[in-house]
Amino acid sequence: MSHLICYHHNRFASLEDVSVPVNDLGYQRGYGIFDFLRVAGETPLYVDDHLNRFFYSAEAMHLPVKQTREELLQIIRQMISVNRLPYSGIRIMLSGGSSPDGYQITAPNLVIVQVPLTPPPDQLLLPGYKVVTYAHQRQMPHVKTTDYLMAIWLQPWVKEQGADDVLYHQNGIVSEFPRSNFFLVADEQTLVTPAHHILHGVTRKQILQVANAQGMKVIEKDITMEEIRSAKEAFISSSTKRVIPIRQLDEIRFAPYTAASITAQLFGWLQQHELATAARA
Amino acid sequence: MSHLICYHHNRFASLEDVSVPVNDLGYQRGYGIFDFLRVAGETPLYVDDHLNRFFYSAEAMHLPVKQTREELLQIIRQMISVNRLPYSGIRIMLSGGSSPDGYQITAPNLVIVQVPLTPPPDQLLLPGYKVVTYAHQRQMPHVKTTDYLMAIWLQPWVKEQGADDVLYHQNGIVSEFPRSNFFLVADEQTLVTPAHHILHGVTRKQILQVANAQGMKVIEKDITMEEIRSAKEAFISSSTKRVIPIRQLDEIRFAPYTAASITAQLFGWLQQHELATAARA
Repeated sequence: MSHLICYHHNRFASLEDVSVPVNDLGYQRGYGIFDFLRVAGETPLYVDDHLNRFFYSAEAMHLPVKQTREELLQIIRQMISVNRLPYSGIRIMLSGGSSPDGYQITAPNLVIVQVPLTPPPDQLLLPGYKVVTYAHQRQMPHVKTTDYLMAIWLQPWVKEQGADDVLYHQNGIVSEFPRSNFFLVADEQTLVTPAHHILHGVTRKQILQVANAQGMKVIEKDITMEEIRSAKEAFISSSTKRVIPIRQLDEIRFAPYTAASITAQLFGWLQQHELATAARA
Repeated sequence: MSHLICYHHNRFASLEDVSVPVNDLGYQRGYGIFDFLRVAGETPLYVDDHLNRFFYSAEAMHLPVKQTREELLQIIRQMISVNRLPYSGIRIMLSGGSSPDGYQITAPNLVIVQVPLTPPPDQLLLPGYKVVTYAHQRQMPHVKTTDYLMAIWLQPWVKEQGADDVLYHQNGIVSEFPRSNFFLVADEQTLVTPAHHILHGVTRKQILQVANAQGMKVIEKDITMEEIRSAKEAFISSSTKRVIPIRQLDEIRFAPYTAASITAQLFGWLQQHELATAARA
């Protein structure tokens, strides 16, 4: 992996030559943003959406980006072409950079790395995840910051519960998973997902689009535990696995998923949508 | 500064040779803790309190420390003796370390650096700070994490308000500043400071001790804006500046501070306490 080419200090470099000083605000103060996109062969998937969000996050956090959007795209394409990985992810990281007083932003630090990935599964992951809920609201949820303090801290507890992931909630309203979005299939025709206090996932957006194109009603709104209890199906949208059905949420158990489930149909539609997007690129 | 000796990967090294990989959870996920103590000549001040809090933070965040308390103390003393700085600070950082999947803690990363400081002022900083309030509650406030996302993000806004620092509040109760604690002098005999949802500062502890030793009543409790309005004086406790009087908090203005102010007396007592502690070390 260490022979991979990445991008740092405005030039390409080998991954083994890339590190950050301990006084980078990203390390010393947890001040940074990033984005992560999948690459299929030569194609960076939904790269426009990811770059849109990257620039949005950077601006929201007062982190100027020296490179233009076109330059970033060019860098990403060049990395892909040199590294020649069959399936991978690109992580674009922007942190506060070295700070003389450990507090003031002077020169943000941009690092772009490519990492090998296993392709997402061809079929819906069955029997699906068991998830648990936890009362927490991410700070600045609409920005893709590097703040995963609670997410990583909760991992031992999640495992103790025999669970695969944790869904945050606050004041009776659920929001999102640490790294993915939450969806309910309220009935065969209706898809519901939280509207507020969440990160707007790129996969979330694709799901809303394909569901809408397939004639489903898509609703973005606050979701309570009562609504989860009466839902038909529930799933997680994930950039690396697309869609993961939820078999159990706290004590709520959902009926087994089959190829006829709405969640499985959405998975298939999403897969088609992705193939068509890659073919067009 | 780059010739300074620091400690990393279980050995001493030059600061210029020390950096962290981009997949360290401290950089990639903002997952880390630290502590910071002042050093006067050869004396690490209140080092027991700082090491207590460091080990508490590490355990709270599931970050095992390879070194014993005695080994850390020995490393700190050796750095001080080699670097020979007249006045400085020691920063002990412990992050999640390199993670193959960017999520699981495998081997935490310990870095100890020494940085030159200007000694704290000899006298109370006058006319004191203007501070503004902002609705926010730090996650895991009792742990000294590297999460300063909100603190750094707020800096441009704080400056726009013509203010020097920002006091967090939530549900009508004030808590703390991003890097320091808050105190009220309710009357000549009574010192009040927030009890909950705060980091327990080492300087805060010293202030409570010296105030108590001087016969003041010290109260740790929830503080509302109404109580601030009716207080006689207000100040910030800071590890680098000891005590900073507050001249204005939002629209609340306090009477000018003089050498006869309780805040000035506390500053003097704290200074004496520190000199006595250094002399005993």
